Amino acid sequence: MRALVYDGELKVREVPMPKPGPGEALIKVLSAGVCKTDVEILHGYMNYMGIPGHEFVGMVEDAPTKAYIGKRVVGEINCVCHQCHYCLMEMPRHCLNRTVLGIAGREGAFAEYLTLPEENLHLAPGSVRDDVLAFTEPVAAAFRITEQIPITTADRIVVLGDGKLGQLVAQVLWLYSKNLVCVGKHEWKMELLNRLGIATAHKSDPLERGADIVVEATGSHDGFARALELVRPEGTIILKTTTTHPTALEFSQPVVNEVKIIGSRCGPFRPALEALSMGNVEVRPMISADFDLRDAVAAMIRAQDADVLKIILHM
Amino acid sequence: MRALVYDGELKVREVPMPKPGPGEALIKVLSAGVCKTDVEILHGYMNYMGIPGHEFVGMVEDAPTKAYIGKRVVGEINCVCHQCHYCLMEMPRHCLNRTVLGIAGREGAFAEYLTLPEENLHLAPGSVRDDVLAFTEPVAAAFRITEQIPITTADRIVVLGDGKLGQLVAQVLWLYSKNLVCVGKHEWKMELLNRLGIATAHKSDPLERGADIVVEATGSHDGFARALELVRPEGTIILKTTTTHPTALEFSQPVVNEVKIIGSRCGPFRPALEALSMGNVEVRPMISADFDLRDAVAAMIRAQDADVLKIILHM
Repeated sequence: MRALVYDGELKVREVPMPKPGPGEALIKVLSAGVCKTDVEILHGYMNYMGIPGHEFVGMVEDAPTKAYIGKRVVGEINCVCHQCHYCLMEMPRHCLNRTVLGIAGREGAFAEYLTLPEENLHLAPGSVRDDVLAFTEPVAAAFRITEQIPITTADRIVVLGDGKLGQLVAQVLWLYSKNLVCVGKHEWKMELLNRLGIATAHKSDPLERGADIVVEATGSHDGFARALELVRPEGTIILKTTTTHPTALEFSQPVVNEVKIIGSRCGPFRPALEALSMGNVEVRPMISADFDLRDAVAAMIRAQDADVLKIILHM
Repeated sequence: MRALVYDGELKVREVPMPKPGPGEALIKVLSAGVCKTDVEILHGYMNYMGIPGHEFVGMVEDAPTKAYIGKRVVGEINCVCHQCHYCLMEMPRHCLNRTVLGIAGREGAFAEYLTLPEENLHLAPGSVRDDVLAFTEPVAAAFRITEQIPITTADRIVVLGDGKLGQLVAQVLWLYSKNLVCVGKHEWKMELLNRLGIATAHKSDPLERGADIVVEATGSHDGFARALELVRPEGTIILKTTTTHPTALEFSQPVVNEVKIIGSRCGPFRPALEALSMGNVEVRPMISADFDLRDAVAAMIRAQDADVLKIILHM
């Protein structure tokens, strides 16, 4: 089959078909989204080598449960052992022996086929387009925040970052509180949110301090210091950026202000699929370009341009 | 009256008696403890100038409520406005207009007399010695953690730091879970905890990872990185150190592991007084030396020695 492979170099080439292990399904990939993590992998993130890609929609070709065959699915990316301490603690996303699709120990979605444990699959709502379903995983990551902290309609929320994840976080949290502002630096990206009725501010604008919740989704190493400036005492900062650059921090202020700082990663697929199928989260305006898998190298390069939000690959 | 004054230089000298404002009591200080914050103030922390000291026990000389007069009291250190957003949100310790005894905008306890709002006072249990009561404020700071997170008997807890605050945090959290280890670097300080039945480890010892709760109370800028190594996914790090040295942090790991990091400062006096009067927290072995107020400069110098835990001043 054809796949994008990173082995120090990035190339589209023919590779052997993946073989499903016990309990796994074989899935023909239809579409896949390019995430910032995929780009970071090219810069050494997680030391991952192989086929990248973890945001996808596909068609089940084979599966232990035959009813899945021929069905369109999306899939959770953490593949877990069910045996370790964290699996037994019902925290499977932190399984000690996990592989992660296209990120750690498991070939990813920028290929004609992939394999995943059947238990990771969710049937895709029939009415939703492939390119929209490719957003399920990052929308789920945005919904993760709502599992971690209570959010009320009165909460003042600041989302730092107008990129792919910042946009989705802003849209999802805006379902919970309208008292939200997304802080960005690109007029055209902020305009996408404004069209949905979501307030934005430029990062150089003075902002009132005292937010109940600040989500750091800038993808940059200076976002955290800004979050500390804006959050109220005993408020919460959600960290979404997995920056690999060390950030110099002065810890006396978060201690004195008793700030809560919570790392946040993968989230629940079910509310993400509901939001996408109901149109509560609007992702199509975020798609900047579509590429065929054979042009995946060009897609990965294009994904790093400042005038791009989401790139979708079609297989 | 006599007081220790820091105005760039540190000196014991005669100053005017403090005058209680509306709602305030005049208190004759009996004993006061030297805290690391007092030493940090000499190095510029909070830009505070004036009389330091915030851990005290005293006798009420005058108060709006006459029943207080002649009673022995301890006092909460945050003096608040009752009008600002955070006071109205019932977070008075984060009052925007607060003064803090001996730390911010209010003369402290290393003096013959101090004033505090009457509402800040707690009657001292009659059976407890002055030098023990001087620990009420830092013991309350340790109890703050139990207000911020639930702690169960099954929780695996690591306390980093065998100094004054680390010792008290270890003793207080050990009341909640016996599955606790305090990590230090001074044999004699760890021995104090061992005598109470509390396990210790040297900071160079290899430690099992995966703690549910790690309390960072090292007072040093490298404690946080160690806390990140030891905490489990979705576990909690409590920050007690108000270090003013910036720490370089790589944020990808706390995000991937979805760690919660919570700053923690002042705490509730009532459980602290109960623990001290019941003997559930043992503080007398932590007292390294007693000084008279007239020798307070020497006391502050001695407080910085590595072979010292608590210094108590007597007025």
